[in-house]
Amino acid sequence: MSFKIAIRSFKTLTYVEGYKKLRDRHIKMYCAAVIGVGYMAYKQHKANKVEMKEILQLKNYMADPITPISHLEKTQDDMKTQMELLIMRIQSEFCRALEKEEDEEAKFQVDRWTRREGGGGITCVLQDGRVFEKAGVNISVVSGKLPPAAVQQMRTRGKSFDGQELPFFAAGVSAVIHPRNPMVPTIHFNYRYFEVQDKNGVQWWFGGGTDLTPYYLNEEDAVHFHLTLKHACDGHDKSYYARFKKWCDDYFTITHRGERRGVGGIFFDDVDQPNQQSAFDFVTSCAEAVIPSYIPLVQKHKDDPYGYYERQWQLLRRGRYVEFNLIYDRGTKFGLFTPEARYESILMSLPLNAKWEYMHEPKPNTPEHSLMKVLKEPRDWLQIEQARATA
Amino acid sequence: MSFKIAIRSFKTLTYVEGYKKLRDRHIKMYCAAVIGVGYMAYKQHKANKVEMKEILQLKNYMADPITPISHLEKTQDDMKTQMELLIMRIQSEFCRALEKEEDEEAKFQVDRWTRREGGGGITCVLQDGRVFEKAGVNISVVSGKLPPAAVQQMRTRGKSFDGQELPFFAAGVSAVIHPRNPMVPTIHFNYRYFEVQDKNGVQWWFGGGTDLTPYYLNEEDAVHFHLTLKHACDGHDKSYYARFKKWCDDYFTITHRGERRGVGGIFFDDVDQPNQQSAFDFVTSCAEAVIPSYIPLVQKHKDDPYGYYERQWQLLRRGRYVEFNLIYDRGTKFGLFTPEARYESILMSLPLNAKWEYMHEPKPNTPEHSLMKVLKEPRDWLQIEQARATA
Repeated sequence: MSFKIAIRSFKTLTYVEGYKKLRDRHIKMYCAAVIGVGYMAYKQHKANKVEMKEILQLKNYMADPITPISHLEKTQDDMKTQMELLIMRIQSEFCRALEKEEDEEAKFQVDRWTRREGGGGITCVLQDGRVFEKAGVNISVVSGKLPPAAVQQMRTRGKSFDGQELPFFAAGVSAVIHPRNPMVPTIHFNYRYFEVQDKNGVQWWFGGGTDLTPYYLNEEDAVHFHLTLKHACDGHDKSYYARFKKWCDDYFTITHRGERRGVGGIFFDDVDQPNQQSAFDFVTSCAEAVIPSYIPLVQKHKDDPYGYYERQWQLLRRGRYVEFNLIYDRGTKFGLFTPEARYESILMSLPLNAKWEYMHEPKPNTPEHSLMKVLKEPRDWLQIEQARATA
Repeated sequence: MSFKIAIRSFKTLTYVEGYKKLRDRHIKMYCAAVIGVGYMAYKQHKANKVEMKEILQLKNYMADPITPISHLEKTQDDMKTQMELLIMRIQSEFCRALEKEEDEEAKFQVDRWTRREGGGGITCVLQDGRVFEKAGVNISVVSGKLPPAAVQQMRTRGKSFDGQELPFFAAGVSAVIHPRNPMVPTIHFNYRYFEVQDKNGVQWWFGGGTDLTPYYLNEEDAVHFHLTLKHACDGHDKSYYARFKKWCDDYFTITHRGERRGVGGIFFDDVDQPNQQSAFDFVTSCAEAVIPSYIPLVQKHKDDPYGYYERQWQLLRRGRYVEFNLIYDRGTKFGLFTPEARYESILMSLPLNAKWEYMHEPKPNTPEHSLMKVLKEPRDWLQIEQARATA
């Protein structure tokens, strides 16, 4: 597995490289080191203990894993371990990529927390930076027992569960990035793995998604974003992107306003096909697509000019973001209603500032109005792209 | 009934007078006119049509009643009519009292709206004033049919309902006032009347409450506020204040944070005792206590000095207000999930600006910390007062 991890790190880094973001010498050395150690680790093969420790060190995670390293070493092929290592890596890569866009002194605050019942998490927040007004990247690895009704809430459809209190395991990474410049969109992503044990054995499934919330519509950005996600999906199942794009538009709806919160992306739940390893590989590709889908947009727009009016509009749209998260988002609700919830980690998704004006309505033929049109009627971004290409 | 209405208007105005707020000549003339017309109306007795029109005119409501005047005239003794006239009057008196504290140019925007299924409302919002950052005072008078599950949500306990789609009527006034100066507390109140018809006949009940959310704790203010509410309750049932004060502390809890949203007040639901008229009189007293409980606090603190730090704290606490309203408040949820909801009227309760900082914790021995202590452990404000008096 170590070889696979090393290869995957390398792939991500080259992916990132392709988007010309992380090209300084330090990263190249890190990249080379990962390949080197991956190769050595593969050669050593059975010397698991030494190998795992080295990989964990080299990964440069934001904090120590939640599960003790000795346990991770012993269970390298267990999906729980694979998922924990994936989310640790995704968290660290994404935090580093965001810090690269910031002023030097703006760094993520790292809080590693544990839960009495089992497990814990690592919450990384960068607040009040020049580029990012509030950026939160959280992982959690929790286990314990839940009543079937609560477990049921964890999945959209799914089979029913049998039993009283069911042992469960959940590991996920989740991030919301609210930039300061209104020309830079907000991104959210979340990738998660569940295991629940009932009388009939262990049920497992993956869920997740990545979606974009611009304040000003830039069609090129939206197409770039969707295209990157489509590439990530296409390598696994050609039907995934279209299905999960629609699911995303449906899910991120502010029902009472009849509008989406952004230009969408992908969203899925209950993925347990075609087998555990392939499902994990798919989720891995999606999670690895976050940086190339988003960081180029930050780089492109972080120094765009804007004024008081654009800032006010951004704050109003952030109010809508709050409405979605607190009223409709299943993850937030599930989190807050879970006993012993670490609410600060759940609510790190809320913007630093938000605004609500009574009866605010953008005037026709303004950029604000153009955004609203897309939020009310989601577009099929990539068909537009194809039509343009053939035109 | 017209005589009773006139007397009630007079009582409120003298109450208000007692607090030395509305003493200009215009109001005195208005007051005198109300008494005069009330007396004349009583003498005329049967000349209902003329009398009602005059009273409606004199009331100086924010807009025309939702129910056609001709229907109100014919149903003067119906509780639905009594309630509609009460909430119209409370809305108008409260809006005028708030405008008196504002700069001359700051006036309420008045939106009268109707609902396809039946009824409508009048939403009054004053936004971005010098004294009030956002003040919303809304009435709604709606009727139609609801599934029993939805009706059940309208009351906390209550009997079960029998039938498929049940005809219902709901009339209420609701207000949230967010002042600009952090030394002035936010107030919320809501008084409502429901009727639901099932196989067994018509069930009716009242609900409501008034609660205060300070940003900086002023014990004298909290005592004044609670004392005013206690007086309003005591005239009807000596047990009400203590019960409804506790209910308020329990209801306005931000569960995931283990804190109340403010220093409480009173809250009740399902009041259908001892009879309809007495229950209405009780609700009337509560609604009439809003101005004397709150306006003196506005007058006292609206010009208090404050700085950037106090404003930031106020914005953080407004974030908590949003959390309560969007996650826990039954009225907001019931409203937003009702088909054809006028969401702008429901969400006028949200502040103009709010803020969320990750892991914000006031330092010990600061005024912010003192507030938090009271929010975590509600005080029995009037026992303190009694202890002081006997000391």
